[in-house]
Order: sequence, then structure tokens, then C-alpha cells
Amino acid sequence: MSDAGLLAGIDVGGSKIAVLVADRDLAMCARATTPTSVDDAEGAVDRIASAVDQALGAAGLSIGDLGAMGIGVPGRVDTETGTVSLAVNLGWHQLPLGELLQQRYRIPVRVENDVRAAAAGLHERRVLGDGADLAYLSVGTGISAGVVLDGKLHRGARGMAGEIGHVVVDRDGPRCPCGLAGCLEAVASGPAVARRADAALDAGVDSSLRDLRPITAVEVYAAAAAGDALALRIAEEAGANLARAVHELVMAYDVPRVVLGGGVALAGRTFLDPILRGLDRLRAESELARDVLPPDVAQILPDGSEAGAWGAVVLARGGLGREVAHP
Amino acid sequence: MSDAGLLAGIDVGGSKIAVLVADRDLAMCARATTPTSVDDAEGAVDRIASAVDQALGAAGLSIGDLGAMGIGVPGRVDTETGTVSLAVNLGWHQLPLGELLQQRYRIPVRVENDVRAAAAGLHERRVLGDGADLAYLSVGTGISAGVVLDGKLHRGARGMAGEIGHVVVDRDGPRCPCGLAGCLEAVASGPAVARRADAALDAGVDSSLRDLRPITAVEVYAAAAAGDALALRIAEEAGANLARAVHELVMAYDVPRVVLGGGVALAGRTFLDPILRGLDRLRAESELARDVLPPDVAQILPDGSEAGAWGAVVLARGGLGREVAHP
Repeated sequence: MSDAGLLAGIDVGGSKIAVLVADRDLAMCARATTPTSVDDAEGAVDRIASAVDQALGAAGLSIGDLGAMGIGVPGRVDTETGTVSLAVNLGWHQLPLGELLQQRYRIPVRVENDVRAAAAGLHERRVLGDGADLAYLSVGTGISAGVVLDGKLHRGARGMAGEIGHVVVDRDGPRCPCGLAGCLEAVASGPAVARRADAALDAGVDSSLRDLRPITAVEVYAAAAAGDALALRIAEEAGANLARAVHELVMAYDVPRVVLGGGVALAGRTFLDPILRGLDRLRAESELARDVLPPDVAQILPDGSEAGAWGAVVLARGGLGREVAHP
Repeated sequence: MSDAGLLAGIDVGGSKIAVLVADRDLAMCARATTPTSVDDAEGAVDRIASAVDQALGAAGLSIGDLGAMGIGVPGRVDTETGTVSLAVNLGWHQLPLGELLQQRYRIPVRVENDVRAAAAGLHERRVLGDGADLAYLSVGTGISAGVVLDGKLHRGARGMAGEIGHVVVDRDGPRCPCGLAGCLEAVASGPAVARRADAALDAGVDSSLRDLRPITAVEVYAAAAAGDALALRIAEEAGANLARAVHELVMAYDVPRVVLGGGVALAGRTFLDPILRGLDRLRAESELARDVLPPDVAQILPDGSEAGAWGAVVLARGGLGREVAHP
């Protein structure tokens, strides 16, 4: 077991790895973001290690300064063993990531689903003030929620709590890759927003997006910000569905706030405002909705929050001092 | 504080009061169910006391044998103070029920929402086997869920967790009294099922229900059991929506089982089978749904479970030995 105390938090995404190194009081010591793709299991550990080295090197630190490591992964994780059972977008299946990194670094390594790690980190760092309950709704390639209840991350009996991306919100909506029709992910994720724009252009709708194909959600929100009518309509529809998701999270868990993040949320107000309008419509229709949805129920993460990497740092802190097996 | 150890559990409904008296090991000592209505706040304590007296008297017990009391109420409860802030169907508003009963009996009295109390009781009594996580979905005049996570009742930041009766499941559905359109309660509660039958008969649909108006949900399910085509169709639609609710509860909380109860669930297989078919359709469409919905995910309470009154007994047990204020 290392006596050194620094924490490495690693957020593994489909197209980049973000590393934050912090001390036990969560003061930042080093950071690195590499666009390196981690698209196969074999090279994953090497690429993660190289990103960690980069962060340490830039701050004049070395591996020996690390006391624990936390990793957030977009997928299903067995947090006991540190094995990633399935991360579709990374192509990982039953990857013993925690064990592999622990063998390499000889420090405790904890692995968690990225959105859940981010939720726990937001709570523990009091990013949005005090309060024992929050949901973090991540909207990106997929949609899922991490939920903190009574001050504790709720993982669920099978570690799948908050997978509301595959709850049906519009039964007449498009078919989701999961098989169901009208899942939240099928109507409001990044790819869903892009597909809607593509379909409208295919149908001959005029829009500033017409020269950008294939279209990304980032481009749709940028066009909406610039006043494009089609993009505005698509953003409004996605926001209405996300407002329903916020409402649902509040009704299910009784969390007084839902924090929005993820790649699509980087569009900022263009992303948030349609959600706020959707919530206002629910409030206008229902006294109960007014009652359960406080004015600040939906909040967007401030720019540069690095919720994923900070979540991984907090995860690492929880692992400090744990025994490391030496097989 | 009384040294006596018996527990009184009281389930207050819109049309009856059920009382169970049990010892600390939850062995039943006495019971009474009175059809007495508790429809105004003024007489509530007297009527509850009379039901308790009846149960005690029938078993040769007296008030001095009671060590604690628990009460489940269909409404919003401040469990700290024992005040019922709102119980719409009982016409109660800011009723300090716990305090009033505590003054009368001089024993600890705990008050809880009836569905949450039932959920906690089902868990603590291991009615459906071991397992730290379950949702109890009560379908009656209203619909709501009580949720046990990691072995503990989840109440939520404002004591409203599980109020999924007002989550929109069919945005084209009928308007709910809450103001929103297509809430779960507006498509699958007892009154909703009855309204659907009424509307179909108004529209000239032939059915054995035509001579029974005004129709109740009990009659619709009885007619479905007897093969009436209209009633079968209504039961099937309600079941499909409840299957979505079960799916949603599983996706949100990651509970491996959802226990169905409440007045409408007394229809038994006629109520349950359409839900099971709805779940099978979700499984047929989606591998993820197959994955998260185990074969026994939806279970119905066995006849005579008295989940509400037993939940109140378990609630009482939690209050044993607490200080009682003597104002």
C-alpha cells in the first residue's frame, strides 16, 4: 500500500481520456485531456497510463505520488471487482480494468459507471450547494442518471439504477437501438437529435443545416442558437422530452434538483431553455407539478465542471488506504 | 413511557379502518376491520380509537397492553411530527394525528404514508423472501409506489418518493385530476378503469356492464373475468400501462421486483395477467428489457396480506421505547 496521498481521477470517454490529479482535500494538482481513443480493450490500460503520465509529468509529479486511482467508464461496472461488464461505445466486454490497473500501479483502483461517479462527485464536492439528494442527468451519446439519495450514491440491486434512457417517454416515437419505441434516448440523446435533423432534411425541410451532413447534435444546437427554425424546433422537442424526464426523476426519487450535464448539455442555454419551458408547461397544467418542481429544479453544470473526472477523483479518495492484492 | 410491548398497526382507508395488534415478534394477537368512514378530521381520533378498542376487546386485551402504535394514512405525512399535511380522500389538512393519538394513549405513535408503510412492512417481514430492494406499487383510487432500497424505506427529500401515479405514461391519454394529461393514475387507477367503461358504454359499446352504472373498477374486472369483451379490453389497456410503470420503476431504482397491491389488485389474476403480458411484450421488443425484467419481477400480494395494517405494525415497532412528550 502506498503512503502517498494524491488521487488520480480518470474519465474515460469514447473519444478522449480526461485525467485530474488532486490531493485529499480535492485541491487540483495536475490535469490532462488527451483525445486518445480507447476503442479496444487490449490497449486500454496503456492508453489510460499514458494519459496519467502526461498529467503527472506536466506537474512535475511521478507515479509514486499517487495514493489511489478512480476511473469512470460509460458502461456497466461491477464495482466490487472493478470489472467493466459492458461498455458498448468502447467495445469492452468483461474487461477487468480495475485489476489490470492495480497490478500496474500497486495502488487501490476503483472503477464506477461514469455518470454515477459524476453524481457522487457533485454531491461530495457540494458543487451545487448542500443537500443530501440530487440526480445528475447526463445527456450525450446515451442518456442516464446518477442518483444521490440521503447523501449516498444509489447504485441499485444490480448496479443499474438511473438507466432512464430506456424508459419510454413517447410511445409513438422512433425505435430505439434497445428495441423499444420512444425511449428517452431515442428522442433526446445527441444521436437522436442529429437523426431528427437528418430526417427533416431528407423530407425537404429548408435549414442552414443542409450543407453540414452528416449532422451532429452540436451542430443542431449551434444552428438553433443562430435562429435556424428547424434546429429550434428539434431543440424544443428534445427539451420537452427532457423536461418530462426531469419530472419523472423528481416524482420517482423525490430529489429537489436535477443537474444536467453530458456532451449535449455543453450547448448551454440553447439546450437548457427548452427544458425550462417544458417544465413551465407542466407547472402551468398541474398544481402538483408546481409543488414538486421548485423554480431551480433543473440546473446545468457550469462550463469546465469536469464532473466526470472530479467524480473519479472522489471515487479514488474512497479507495485510499484499501489493501491492494499482490497476485 | 409504557413498558407494555404490544404493537397496534392501523391502516386508515377512505371507507374502513383496519387494526392489527401484534407482539414484538410480529405474531398476531388481535384484529378488527371496521367499515367506519374517517371522512372528517374532527372525529378521526375517536373513530380510530374505537377501532383499536374493538380489536383489543375481541382478544381480551386492554389499552395498557399497548407499547406503541403505527398508522398508515393515504396522504402526505410529516413523519417527524406525525402530522398529516394532506390526505385528499379523507379531507384531512394539517391534522396532527400523531400528537392527538399520543396524547390519548401516552405511547409512541408513528404516522406514515400508507403505501410507504406497507412497503417497509413487506420488506421487514420478508413477505416475498429476502432481498434488500423492492417496490410496492399500490393500485387503487390512486396509484403510488413505496420503495425499499438497500433494506431501507426511501422517503425522499420531501417525503414524496414513489409518487409515480402522476408520471405521464400516455401523453395522448385522458386528463388527470392533477392537471396533466395521461398520468398513470388517469389510465390505470380504479376510477380511471371505471371511467373508461362508462365512456365506452356512453359511446354505445355493448357489454354486460351496461346495467351496472355507475360502474366500479371491481365490476369491470369481474366482467373481464367472466369474458366480457369490453371489460377485457379495458383490463388489457390498464395492464399495459401498469407494465410500463413496472418497467419504469425497475429502470429508475433498479429494484428486481415490484409487488402489486391496493384495492384494484384484489381482482387477482384478471388484474395481474394483462400486466404480465405487457411485460412480455417489452421483453420481446428489447434485449435490455429482457435483461432487467426477471420472470418474477411483477408479483401480486397474496389474498389477505393486509400489507397496510402490517406495515403500520412494523412502523409501531420502530417507535417502541421512544420518549413520549407529556405536554
